[in-house]
Amino acid sequence: MNIPAPYLLYLGHTTDPVGIKTSRGLAEFRRHDCVGEFRHDDCPLTLGLPRMSIAEGAAAGARTLVLGVANAGGTMDLPMIADAKAALEAGLNVASGLHHRLNAVPELVAIANARGLALFDVRDPPANLPVGTGRPRAGRRILTVGTDCSVGKMYASLALVDGLRASGQTADFRATGQTGILIAGGGVPLDAVIADFISGAIEYLAPARDDGGWDVIEGQGSLFHPSFAGVSTGLLHGAQPEALVLCHDPARKGIRGLPERPMPGLAECLAANLQVARLTSPNVRAAGICLNTSSFSEAEAQRLCGEAGHLLGLPCTDPYRFGVEAIIDNLLCHERSKPAPIASR
Amino acid sequence: MNIPAPYLLYLGHTTDPVGIKTSRGLAEFRRHDCVGEFRHDDCPLTLGLPRMSIAEGAAAGARTLVLGVANAGGTMDLPMIADAKAALEAGLNVASGLHHRLNAVPELVAIANARGLALFDVRDPPANLPVGTGRPRAGRRILTVGTDCSVGKMYASLALVDGLRASGQTADFRATGQTGILIAGGGVPLDAVIADFISGAIEYLAPARDDGGWDVIEGQGSLFHPSFAGVSTGLLHGAQPEALVLCHDPARKGIRGLPERPMPGLAECLAANLQVARLTSPNVRAAGICLNTSSFSEAEAQRLCGEAGHLLGLPCTDPYRFGVEAIIDNLLCHERSKPAPIASR
Repeated sequence: MNIPAPYLLYLGHTTDPVGIKTSRGLAEFRRHDCVGEFRHDDCPLTLGLPRMSIAEGAAAGARTLVLGVANAGGTMDLPMIADAKAALEAGLNVASGLHHRLNAVPELVAIANARGLALFDVRDPPANLPVGTGRPRAGRRILTVGTDCSVGKMYASLALVDGLRASGQTADFRATGQTGILIAGGGVPLDAVIADFISGAIEYLAPARDDGGWDVIEGQGSLFHPSFAGVSTGLLHGAQPEALVLCHDPARKGIRGLPERPMPGLAECLAANLQVARLTSPNVRAAGICLNTSSFSEAEAQRLCGEAGHLLGLPCTDPYRFGVEAIIDNLLCHERSKPAPIASR
Repeated sequence: MNIPAPYLLYLGHTTDPVGIKTSRGLAEFRRHDCVGEFRHDDCPLTLGLPRMSIAEGAAAGARTLVLGVANAGGTMDLPMIADAKAALEAGLNVASGLHHRLNAVPELVAIANARGLALFDVRDPPANLPVGTGRPRAGRRILTVGTDCSVGKMYASLALVDGLRASGQTADFRATGQTGILIAGGGVPLDAVIADFISGAIEYLAPARDDGGWDVIEGQGSLFHPSFAGVSTGLLHGAQPEALVLCHDPARKGIRGLPERPMPGLAECLAANLQVARLTSPNVRAAGICLNTSSFSEAEAQRLCGEAGHLLGLPCTDPYRFGVEAIIDNLLCHERSKPAPIASR
């Protein structure tokens, strides 16, 4: 995937902060590639980038408009199509992580073709994915799992990769969602894969490795989200993780998109994930907990991390506030006390 | 779906009896629509229908060749494409339940178009499926679940529909696999649905109903099959079943396609399915066990059913050998002892 930078990030008419997570991820992890943000007057959100019209973005050097917004179902509405059209007419490529494909809108395809511009549908999965086997494979894999969608699994995964590298380890981020794929420049959009190939897609994404390096696999959905638990289950089986990191947002009142549904308890959620993971990774263990405490004070955040860590007997942190050193220490300590790994099984 | 009957059933080069389950399902449940079976000399299997060449099938009145074979991954190999081509050239339509689509083979499309014949890809899911919500909906739904793929879930489901009808109930079979869809004339090919829409597809297939009738939903895969457990999980959540029926093949030595992997125990498997189902159906219960005892003597079959029933404290039967009355009685007795149902929630 070679999406020309720099980017103009699209917020559109979005009012829900979680709805712009793809744009926010790029703004945070590839900020040097982002010239500005495009939003309509009814959008109260900002990424702290200069607000630009599409023409201003083009004049500032943007080469691609990234439709970094999300909604349940991944639809593209008419105003969004109109904005994409305006971007093409201003000479920008357009990239999208929505289910509804840019390349499925004939009007956009026609303009892009006429102007020699590209439409990037990040959610098109690779062709010819294999069916998963669950057969033991070499390698050291960590999977982030969550109490819900959008609780910080991608952020935690990226922080764990940085933390492992800072400890002298080789580590790679394995992206499974549109934001992660845009940040990493590759990956598998797991929720767009055909159902029979979910676990196989992860075996493809994080194949056997015997260089001693780690794969940190970005989790998706939640076993406790009735819309998406099938994806989370196949991901656990395909990842064959040696360790799980549980992610949670303590401010979340109910399951995303289904507010009447209560969040699961941390202990219940971790136990369910370990149980499902054991089918392909019998010795899987929990390595830590990552909380997104962005809506709490520092003191509250410390208290929340302390309580959750005590409850589960695991290191607990907010990766962006307090770092992930405690979880990395747990991973590496455990490693030192293990017998020598089998290089290739 | 309107696939012209009668059918010529394809066995091809298949040597594994489970590999012809779609052809066998049609031979058993729509036998009056089947004129014969087509197999190559290296295929040791038969459905007990007259063996016919494609020309003989056409002469006997067959209007469609049904590629009723299955393999992990659902690929169509070159010999199978050659046979499909021969059928078209003999004036037959062709239907297939494989992942690999007939309509994706330009050579077949060209011949079909030239001759005014149709290619039916039963595994194309409906467009615009919704994302599941897990919200409580009216209706009485039974889901068959299994220790593995291909252990008799479809057969059990069809038998339960017949049994409910014989008891004066209204009941409908909700097909989720290619064989079931061919038998029922409709349904959703669940393993071909995009991963984000698995549970939503089942909410679409078996929507709220308040006529007092039952939906018997055909299960797929197994929570203990590492290739397909994601599908089974989403199916449990979308089905929102009031009762599960556990299906098992006591002759199965290891998980289908992964013979080194042991089968789960019945109690372990049932407990895991009930746990997953509770997310959207908190009062779900087990209604019975169906064993496929076709490779055992009558006495052995009775002993196996007795043992499994005793182990789990549930009625246990082989639906084709001993009927499903005990399970139907359990379903209806429980119903009579329940408070009056809420007609619509």
